[in-house]
Amino acid sequence: MGKKQENFSEWYNEIIEKADLIDKRYPIKGMDVWRPYGLSVMRAIDGAIREGMRRTDHQEVEFPLFIPQTEFNKEADQIKGFGGEVYWVTKGGESDLDIPLVVRPTSETAMYPMFSLWVRSHKHLPLKVFQIVSVFRYETKQTRSFLRVRQIHFFEAHTAHWDYEDAERQILEDLDLTAALCEKLCLPYLLSKRPDWDKFPGAHYTVAADAMLPELKTLQIATHHHYKDNFAKPYDIKYEAATGGHQYAHQTTYGISERILGAVVAVHGDDKGLMLPPAVAPYQAVVVPILFKGKEAGVVEGAKALAQKLERAGYRVHVDTRDETAGFKFNDWEMRGVPVQIQLGPRDLEKQQCVLVRRDNGDKRVVDLATADTALGEALELYASGLVSRAWETLTANIKDVKTAEEAKGVVGIARTGWCGSDECGERIQKVTEKTVLGIPVDVAFGEAFAKQAAHKLALPARGFQGACAACGKDTTTPVHIAKTY
Amino acid sequence: MGKKQENFSEWYNEIIEKADLIDKRYPIKGMDVWRPYGLSVMRAIDGAIREGMRRTDHQEVEFPLFIPQTEFNKEADQIKGFGGEVYWVTKGGESDLDIPLVVRPTSETAMYPMFSLWVRSHKHLPLKVFQIVSVFRYETKQTRSFLRVRQIHFFEAHTAHWDYEDAERQILEDLDLTAALCEKLCLPYLLSKRPDWDKFPGAHYTVAADAMLPELKTLQIATHHHYKDNFAKPYDIKYEAATGGHQYAHQTTYGISERILGAVVAVHGDDKGLMLPPAVAPYQAVVVPILFKGKEAGVVEGAKALAQKLERAGYRVHVDTRDETAGFKFNDWEMRGVPVQIQLGPRDLEKQQCVLVRRDNGDKRVVDLATADTALGEALELYASGLVSRAWETLTANIKDVKTAEEAKGVVGIARTGWCGSDECGERIQKVTEKTVLGIPVDVAFGEAFAKQAAHKLALPARGFQGACAACGKDTTTPVHIAKTY
Repeated sequence: MGKKQENFSEWYNEIIEKADLIDKRYPIKGMDVWRPYGLSVMRAIDGAIREGMRRTDHQEVEFPLFIPQTEFNKEADQIKGFGGEVYWVTKGGESDLDIPLVVRPTSETAMYPMFSLWVRSHKHLPLKVFQIVSVFRYETKQTRSFLRVRQIHFFEAHTAHWDYEDAERQILEDLDLTAALCEKLCLPYLLSKRPDWDKFPGAHYTVAADAMLPELKTLQIATHHHYKDNFAKPYDIKYEAATGGHQYAHQTTYGISERILGAVVAVHGDDKGLMLPPAVAPYQAVVVPILFKGKEAGVVEGAKALAQKLERAGYRVHVDTRDETAGFKFNDWEMRGVPVQIQLGPRDLEKQQCVLVRRDNGDKRVVDLATADTALGEALELYASGLVSRAWETLTANIKDVKTAEEAKGVVGIARTGWCGSDECGERIQKVTEKTVLGIPVDVAFGEAFAKQAAHKLALPARGFQGACAACGKDTTTPVHIAKTY
Repeated sequence: MGKKQENFSEWYNEIIEKADLIDKRYPIKGMDVWRPYGLSVMRAIDGAIREGMRRTDHQEVEFPLFIPQTEFNKEADQIKGFGGEVYWVTKGGESDLDIPLVVRPTSETAMYPMFSLWVRSHKHLPLKVFQIVSVFRYETKQTRSFLRVRQIHFFEAHTAHWDYEDAERQILEDLDLTAALCEKLCLPYLLSKRPDWDKFPGAHYTVAADAMLPELKTLQIATHHHYKDNFAKPYDIKYEAATGGHQYAHQTTYGISERILGAVVAVHGDDKGLMLPPAVAPYQAVVVPILFKGKEAGVVEGAKALAQKLERAGYRVHVDTRDETAGFKFNDWEMRGVPVQIQLGPRDLEKQQCVLVRRDNGDKRVVDLATADTALGEALELYASGLVSRAWETLTANIKDVKTAEEAKGVVGIARTGWCGSDECGERIQKVTEKTVLGIPVDVAFGEAFAKQAAHKLALPARGFQGACAACGKDTTTPVHIAKTY
């Protein structure tokens, strides 16, 4: 396997197949097969998202995959933004379809004709729904598993509200959910208000969460869009207000794709393989019975009893009884990123103890079988905070303050500099640096409520900036982050 | 709402929308929107299927939606069977695709090129995987929600085995799973070996489970296909045998679609609405606090405490605190098919009791709050066996023994008659009766092992038949079932 620091791409492409996350050999470029282990991790991430949706009174729905061209074309920015990269169904059986069908690249244009039917009165608001489905983009750029694919495992929440302010409250709620999810995934991130030219097609504004990957490029892992009434107008989503009269609803969306699994793989892994966050690891611990010839008696049974005890305490535990050496098993589970391995040999059993080995730093602890559940809980917490602190260090250590676009060009990682806010200067910065303007940190771009979001445990705030625009030199208190992106 | 017995179609079309299962107003014919309540029932059915898959060591995967035309065309019967009713993706962005993509109508031709890579040695067998995804058919017939749609919520298990016998053991295991699922859904069924002209395209044989719907037509709710090596040959799924040499694998598939939800709705419902089987009802019980002005104190709290007690006992319970009358709530939950409603008023609270009302027969029972959990358990069991016995009675009462095809034509329900087994006579029977030959009961068509399947609690056996072919009059011990089908 390639070394992660020397050749990230090679390492990444190898580990995702070796650890049985996906199989890339499906005969369509950019469409992978989800293998059981990978699907299980993705489903656990979905589960964490669903839990957040339930907590915030969102309801799960499922809309059809196809969108008639006539509906798709109603919102002009969507056509401009997606028209060039959607798949078209033009034939059913032997005959050409009267109206070609778009394979959804995202579901605004599928959902909003129905929202228009569902939302009649202020009593129907807020409307908060979500779905977890596949969406499709005809990528022309080079594809890479999880990070840039043509069939995308996708979560999308869509809401409708009385007014602008209530929709903005939704954005803040979504940012809370992103914080909770990233904490489960041990993933630190930046929150940026995307520049206007980079916001979602049709959005009023877009707030994105970006993680930093080993090549020191950033990866967008979650987006939160305020739509104002930009979609409500073409799709006629109107309600009778409590005070009488009809008003257009204000809308938001919130999206997270399988990219976030790519970030988990890329950020936490090492040369030995994956390191999965305990919250989404299919197995949080694997018990490996150590068998010596003639002394097997009771060891496998002991391992199973131990696993049962740990499962009863709420952990996901597997006993590896394969006919392989303990060394093979150890390396195998290390490669698959199991947070803690538990070794149990005949002498351990005699002494009523076992050995806990942490995946991140190899730390071994001998613990009593009687208290193994508490010890596992502690080991998982230490392991998770180990993942967090390493990732946090990488992110913060690779943000450099610079004064000019030329300087920003030389930065490996994220350059922070001033921006006067004009499109012209923004574009010049991108041209000179050959990097992307991620946008303005939300604590600077918006008011106090967003500052709290930026101060979430794993987000990175940026208030109090004083500087000058990297392009025109004007004094400004507005910083931007600039980076190479995936 | 229409009356179920007088106008089943009208009743069905109304209840599925009124009970918020789906919304049919999506602007593509045959593609409905899953609303939260309906999706929740479907997901519970998926959950029951998944549980069965886990119990039998199947692993969950997810394959891409699109299949290159070149792969799709490898198995000739599949093209013949599905070619006329698949959706074709022919364009990506602005450009025509080099190779058109089929939107999967089922996943044999997507999976088997990968099976060919995965299966190398006898050690890789049996291979048992499944997925729960959407599949697509360009239906030209009239569509109807759940029963005949163009986007189909679909479970499909695919397996590969050493030989014919091991694949047949898999069919028996699948039949066991169907029995367990139908028991959860309170759905009786017939198991038939489909005639050759009606088996799945590419299959060696097909065993189907058919339920009976109120119009006394049958609905296929599960299929079990033995493929022999029919797919292994064109897709090159070969393994090195333990004894040396290479052999083609034998394969099976097992499929269940959202049709089974259509059966649940149609079989159990009545003029007041749905009746959901306890195993898949989003709420098994709803607590309705009865509020009198001035006497509300403590009733809502009491209802919540009761719900909590019941949830702790493992039941899914909801407290309806909406600002509506108790009568409105009662009718509403009755319509949505909640198995048991629990009424709690101020006097009940005083006496530390509540009233359990069964959805199927309206039976009321006053029970102590202290033992409400046990009482709910009993009520749910009685309710479920009520559903079963009514459905069983309808099925068995509507099977009529007849001697000739002409007589069979007159039967409303299922006609049972003899069949010599020839295609010619089979076709003549279908022509004369204007009905479909469902096939030969499995206990007659196969050996002893299948007889056990036909004797499963909710399946219907048919051994010991003596008669004559309804077309040619030859003596035969082989019966066939003939019915109008959906």
